[in-house]
Amino acid sequence: MQNGNSTKYDNRPIGVFDSGVGGLTVVKQLMKRLPSEQIVYFGDTARIPYGTKSEEIVRRFSLEDSYFLLDKSVKMIVVACNTASAIALQMLKQILAIPLTGVIQPGAAAAYRNSRNKKIGVIGTAATIRSNSYSREIRLLDQEIRVVPQPCPLFVPMVEEGWLEDEATYLVARRYLQPLLENQVDTLILGCTHYPLLKNVIGKIMGPEVTLVDSGVETAWTVENVLREQQLLADPEQVPEHRFYLSDMPYKFQEIAERFLERSVPHVQTVNFEEFLVEKGSMFWKKYQEDLLKIY
Amino acid sequence: MQNGNSTKYDNRPIGVFDSGVGGLTVVKQLMKRLPSEQIVYFGDTARIPYGTKSEEIVRRFSLEDSYFLLDKSVKMIVVACNTASAIALQMLKQILAIPLTGVIQPGAAAAYRNSRNKKIGVIGTAATIRSNSYSREIRLLDQEIRVVPQPCPLFVPMVEEGWLEDEATYLVARRYLQPLLENQVDTLILGCTHYPLLKNVIGKIMGPEVTLVDSGVETAWTVENVLREQQLLADPEQVPEHRFYLSDMPYKFQEIAERFLERSVPHVQTVNFEEFLVEKGSMFWKKYQEDLLKIY
Repeated sequence: MQNGNSTKYDNRPIGVFDSGVGGLTVVKQLMKRLPSEQIVYFGDTARIPYGTKSEEIVRRFSLEDSYFLLDKSVKMIVVACNTASAIALQMLKQILAIPLTGVIQPGAAAAYRNSRNKKIGVIGTAATIRSNSYSREIRLLDQEIRVVPQPCPLFVPMVEEGWLEDEATYLVARRYLQPLLENQVDTLILGCTHYPLLKNVIGKIMGPEVTLVDSGVETAWTVENVLREQQLLADPEQVPEHRFYLSDMPYKFQEIAERFLERSVPHVQTVNFEEFLVEKGSMFWKKYQEDLLKIY
Repeated sequence: MQNGNSTKYDNRPIGVFDSGVGGLTVVKQLMKRLPSEQIVYFGDTARIPYGTKSEEIVRRFSLEDSYFLLDKSVKMIVVACNTASAIALQMLKQILAIPLTGVIQPGAAAAYRNSRNKKIGVIGTAATIRSNSYSREIRLLDQEIRVVPQPCPLFVPMVEEGWLEDEATYLVARRYLQPLLENQVDTLILGCTHYPLLKNVIGKIMGPEVTLVDSGVETAWTVENVLREQQLLADPEQVPEHRFYLSDMPYKFQEIAERFLERSVPHVQTVNFEEFLVEKGSMFWKKYQEDLLKIY
């Protein structure tokens, strides 16, 4: 489509994937920032979590998730999962011919802009923290910044249990956050899509002087910039119809999803992901192996 | 093989699968009870956990895991995962032409034999508890027994974090176990392969009067009986060579595995399970759909 000012619009959807429903916190920000963009979301609820697993598995799953979104004709892919962003984004960028954004770089940039004392804390899953991705991105911006990383493996199950303000949650959080307090960070990156739901607990323990950075908010800005630069923005008049695909329909899905998206999730479809892999297998598997050969 | 007493031996391996490494607690008991039996273990570490997922997914994954073991020419399959036993065993028995044992029935029988006051507690994952399998099995033995079920979703991540005796673990455990104390159960089934590692914490909270039932011990007895009845026991002289397959190699695997098996795990191979599905896909998938049609 072209209008008189020769502005091109691209109404294809933005693809977003996550290991589960946590990525809906990123979707929420995308909807707010880019209300005319259509979103296709894939949550790999059958294989969740990614954050406790190996780099190889996280890369393989992320590539499969991307293939699924490409199959839905998306114009761009947002890796909403911190673990997948930390471990697989580089590889995805090398082999997929489509714009891609993760949540690490936007979160790191926001933390860098905010920090006064140059001490930044990062909390995330075991895999995200082991990858050192946040530290690397922050050091690219300023070598003098001290990054204090802390894995918090129990935060995700506690959020999924719904214990957002419980005594046990405070006890676990105080234990995880103690080294960050001792190191006097003035900025803390919530490096996992589940953690914004623990903002109250984390905020109370860290105190009002410490700024909590939610990568989702920053990522929506980045997505807008990428779409603008590459002339991929949708027609502002478009009324988007979002689609949500999950590899498993979790028990009480709507309840959990609303916790993350702060509204109900319409048009949810469960995908038989093994069947998808098997059906497209000969094609995707061959492509997958060729793709991997290119980079390893 | 036949000897003079026309005793037949069957030296094919026993297949054991679990959603991860927790099933090694069952393997430990099998090795103790049946030292000449060879074991092929499959741990679905790439898709762990099962206990938070839907019945449909647990059934599909369990069938795929079984296909993998059948591909290794096992003579029997032990479903070492409580969630898979609770949800998928019945289906597996209906469609696979091989002896199968889960961990639910043996655990239920042991609890029934032990209880004096006819009040039995069951703790497990959300999916195991929702399935009501333990209650059903216990009621088959004695309709008057009162079963008190309690899901404990945070126990698995706490064990995997290695917090086996921590303040936070006690706090979480006290909260979960309170209703069981109030209901004065005299027997408590540890309905998840991870829970025997929390025996100390659980035992201290429940008190010395409450017997903790570890399904792994009971399952090894059942396996021996099945093999004996069906003349499938291995030659007692056989020196077994166990094989362990995992769909992902978890970080610090040996450390975690030793926690469960109480010895090091040799001959561990990582399996690319998607590739297995895709390669055998046309065959297995067709069979899978035919198999499911038989029962639904």
